[in-house]
Amino acid sequence: VSEVAFADRLAGLVEERHSQIALGLDPNPQALWRGLFSDAENGRQSVAEAVLAHCRDVIAAVASSCVAVKLQLACFERLGASGWEALEAVISACQEHELLCIADGKRGDVPTTAQAYAEAFVGHTTTPQGVLPGLGVDALTVNPLLGGDSLEPLVSVARPNGAGLFALVLTSNPGAGDIQELRTDAGPVYEQLARLVEQFDQDLVGECGLSGMGAVTAATRPGQLARLRQLMPRAIFLIPGVGAQGGRPEQLGAAFRDNAPASGLVTASRSIVDAHRNFGGDPPAAAANAVEKLRKAVWTASTERN
Amino acid sequence: VSEVAFADRLAGLVEERHSQIALGLDPNPQALWRGLFSDAENGRQSVAEAVLAHCRDVIAAVASSCVAVKLQLACFERLGASGWEALEAVISACQEHELLCIADGKRGDVPTTAQAYAEAFVGHTTTPQGVLPGLGVDALTVNPLLGGDSLEPLVSVARPNGAGLFALVLTSNPGAGDIQELRTDAGPVYEQLARLVEQFDQDLVGECGLSGMGAVTAATRPGQLARLRQLMPRAIFLIPGVGAQGGRPEQLGAAFRDNAPASGLVTASRSIVDAHRNFGGDPPAAAANAVEKLRKAVWTASTERN
Repeated sequence: VSEVAFADRLAGLVEERHSQIALGLDPNPQALWRGLFSDAENGRQSVAEAVLAHCRDVIAAVASSCVAVKLQLACFERLGASGWEALEAVISACQEHELLCIADGKRGDVPTTAQAYAEAFVGHTTTPQGVLPGLGVDALTVNPLLGGDSLEPLVSVARPNGAGLFALVLTSNPGAGDIQELRTDAGPVYEQLARLVEQFDQDLVGECGLSGMGAVTAATRPGQLARLRQLMPRAIFLIPGVGAQGGRPEQLGAAFRDNAPASGLVTASRSIVDAHRNFGGDPPAAAANAVEKLRKAVWTASTERN
Repeated sequence: VSEVAFADRLAGLVEERHSQIALGLDPNPQALWRGLFSDAENGRQSVAEAVLAHCRDVIAAVASSCVAVKLQLACFERLGASGWEALEAVISACQEHELLCIADGKRGDVPTTAQAYAEAFVGHTTTPQGVLPGLGVDALTVNPLLGGDSLEPLVSVARPNGAGLFALVLTSNPGAGDIQELRTDAGPVYEQLARLVEQFDQDLVGECGLSGMGAVTAATRPGQLARLRQLMPRAIFLIPGVGAQGGRPEQLGAAFRDNAPASGLVTASRSIVDAHRNFGGDPPAAAANAVEKLRKAVWTASTERN
């Protein structure tokens, strides 16, 4: 819970660190920096502990060049309850390094259930014996296919808790075209998703003038970014697809609002965490190099347009 | 893991019990049949234990009239790691009563992440020290906004594990119209979602002729069911929206395929679990009455059309 809006907290960190990078953590038990613990017995708990150690190492290596961490929930869910415990510990590690936490869960459901997701991630659950805190992340990615009433409860809980939301508008995978790019009477589906996001803009706006009702807009479709910025002038864009998926930082200028470097957050996962596989060196140093290079490239792309 | 396809396991149970009912469990700590345990200290673990006891009670009360249970993941996630443990125990309880388990998570993500969700729910995770089993549910609800390549890994993992998938096509909330009913060159978006589902029909088809590549199609929009059945002739429909949301069983005939009573599964949650609030009686008896009434109404609707 924060009294300061997500957009303002993010803007403060971006100005301070000259960074718009969200480290993506999607830990794969086959590719942990230190591997599994050799003296541990097999099982979800020991794998989850190794995953946690890995995430802590990665965070420590790159924190100074980042402003946020995007946690891929699927990678924790596949470790069961132990994975959920690891997730909570990783969130604590992010907080120690003053990194905002974005739970990448792409949740979306009918209003009653959307309310439960809101409680799980950015709010709390009321019980007859008191209140149970949720995961306490700073923001959550959400899937808007179910429409405006499915976003409403999430926005209502996010607002008093100073949290943000990133709704899928145009995703980075090749299959995004199947539905998101279908043409409707009023433009492609992704533009309609953008208009839906824009309806909640005012609810999560910060003093900095940006809105924590954000949008996921892919770096792999740079030609659409200018139009999306036009449709969602104040939304913070969460931009995946740089690196392994082929998006290039120098093409991202149009994603940013004039004189608002916090209007775009670029996420990178494998290109940072697996940098040592591509460029050699020990994992922390290779990751630190990769993220610093990306930080500079994105900062340049966002500022040169002004 | 089952060697028998989801569609065939479901068809067997439907024939045996003359039921097409999936009990929806979305436990609310404010409305548990026995309340919280008064001697327990507050905290997620004790609430999760009370939620588990509640779910076991409900399952025991209605199992003989049902073929499946639909577990609302949000309601477990808001209890953290303890909630995940309760979820696993509820799944065991379903198995004891020979009820198929549908995890209602509406997951959907880019291919790498979709693979991780598949591992989490219907497959297993490979690690250097061996294999970790996933949650082991019989089916998962998925969100197809990200397109065909986001469904592919889920289908690929579901098939060898005898699991099913239900993709959102037309949902039961009023806001469904915002995106799903937009008109495209080739018909409304929900028809395009149906065509996307249909592409994976063959992958999860069973010997019974139905496909475990299913679709979520709302009872609140009965006028669209005939068209959706035409577009997805073999898909199993998961049909929410009966009861509290206003859908009526007698309007659901068009959802079913001729001579295939297992081609539709009707989910009901609050109208069963909270039946005692509306009709009096003790909770298990009221729930058993409500579910038996619904079972008969749906069975009649599905068979009278043949």
